[in-house]
Amino acid sequence: MKLNKVVIFGVGLIGGSFALALRRAHAVAEVVGFGRSMATLEQAQQLGIIDRIGHDVAAEVNDADLVLLATPVGQMAELMARMAPHLGPHTLLTDGGSTKSDVVAAAYANLGDKAAQFVPAHPIAGAEQSGAAAALADLYSGKKVVLTPLPENSSDSIHRVRRAWELCGAVVSELTAAQHDEVFAAVSHLPHLLSFALVHDLARRDNRDVLLSFAASGFRDFTRIAASSPEMWRDICLANRDALLDELGGYMQELEIIHQALDEGDADKLQEIFSLARDVRSVWTPQ
Amino acid sequence: MKLNKVVIFGVGLIGGSFALALRRAHAVAEVVGFGRSMATLEQAQQLGIIDRIGHDVAAEVNDADLVLLATPVGQMAELMARMAPHLGPHTLLTDGGSTKSDVVAAAYANLGDKAAQFVPAHPIAGAEQSGAAAALADLYSGKKVVLTPLPENSSDSIHRVRRAWELCGAVVSELTAAQHDEVFAAVSHLPHLLSFALVHDLARRDNRDVLLSFAASGFRDFTRIAASSPEMWRDICLANRDALLDELGGYMQELEIIHQALDEGDADKLQEIFSLARDVRSVWTPQ
Repeated sequence: MKLNKVVIFGVGLIGGSFALALRRAHAVAEVVGFGRSMATLEQAQQLGIIDRIGHDVAAEVNDADLVLLATPVGQMAELMARMAPHLGPHTLLTDGGSTKSDVVAAAYANLGDKAAQFVPAHPIAGAEQSGAAAALADLYSGKKVVLTPLPENSSDSIHRVRRAWELCGAVVSELTAAQHDEVFAAVSHLPHLLSFALVHDLARRDNRDVLLSFAASGFRDFTRIAASSPEMWRDICLANRDALLDELGGYMQELEIIHQALDEGDADKLQEIFSLARDVRSVWTPQ
Repeated sequence: MKLNKVVIFGVGLIGGSFALALRRAHAVAEVVGFGRSMATLEQAQQLGIIDRIGHDVAAEVNDADLVLLATPVGQMAELMARMAPHLGPHTLLTDGGSTKSDVVAAAYANLGDKAAQFVPAHPIAGAEQSGAAAALADLYSGKKVVLTPLPENSSDSIHRVRRAWELCGAVVSELTAAQHDEVFAAVSHLPHLLSFALVHDLARRDNRDVLLSFAASGFRDFTRIAASSPEMWRDICLANRDALLDELGGYMQELEIIHQALDEGDADKLQEIFSLARDVRSVWTPQ
């Protein structure tokens, strides 16, 4: 597959890496970038991420093969509304958002009957750095990308968007948007919330400097994700509120059980909980 | 300071590394090891960790300069009772237990008026590996060791035990046993409990393999400590039950607040919590 023109909204880590990966695979002839910051766009052009800075959304999305929305999820609805009247009949649209039900709802609300051209995606790639300078041609190599196709998508559209992500080196799988949001509430959003909560709980105390001075490698790893962007995680948590509330509620019940076992000195119960966790965690490795 | 004879009970990671570190510092003439497993003791001798395998506790502790209890905390009371009648007047005793109030209570109950010779210690050194083969001469280099001296300890006894740990390369600080247990409930024991709880919560589900297949680096780091020894952490949690119940209760209140903010869609509250956590965590680094 060779793409003549790819248009990217948001040329930071996610969007910039997508462009660099397609270039490395010789899978794209021209990349056009849009974004809120002219400085970032110019940097992306200097870094060889994009060929041109776009100025006219209507014209650029009309003859593009593929448009990637790599902005914060909160900006996607407005962008969809702006481009909807101008999307060419053969132009496909995908995104890089961490939540999917909300993006799908935005697509139905703003793309109208062109929602069929939108194949939602979530690339599971680290984001400790951000910005165009952090973009890497191999960010997606061997990483998972989850597509959450719409019933309106043609199999050919799904195939072409899948192929674009595969050309970036990704391992692509498919879930429904609801399944996606339930899975990521459990394995990503809840752990982030819990890590933020622990550090916040310590941070408010008068003796926090003493406490932190004795924290070691276990604390370091448990709280690494508490250094993530507050704005991004606020938005993710709110976008996936229902699934995350279910997960958080279930976890609070788990803590009630552990609190009771500890209070009663129930060694067997504690060991049962810790042992199942150890058994499962010690054989698991990330993709 | 040069020690003529050091006796170590438990020649695994903690005890073996103590011996190797003192040897490297040319700070000890002879190391005698005791333990439950003859195979481990023989391995420790072959690895040059100990000079001799001890057979007679009474004789060995009588003329030792320093005795280290590096067994699981649950075995220390019995060992203290066995050695108490035989501890020489100039023999000092220290330990490597992760909890301190329980070890101090065991010392008062089992050492009698020789409790003054016991200077409790907690080396904050990683323990992902265990056993004599995992012992390292530099395990304690630059790592914190917390002493929790007893009111009965002479300043000379405290000084000599501090010096022994410093010769191992450790950075030594002092807290009371109660302070120690409160600090480590917050920065170590609670995070372990929370990490075990999250993995246990997922591990019981029918779709756990699907969930785990999408877990990535954030989950990996958050749950690394859930692969720790269930027996060891059961014992630590029970030994430090009161302080840990306080911490767990406080954390559950924190989650109630977050649950409410999420349920109400309170973006400002979530961002306030996440921002304070991020600000504190992003400037913190472990020792």
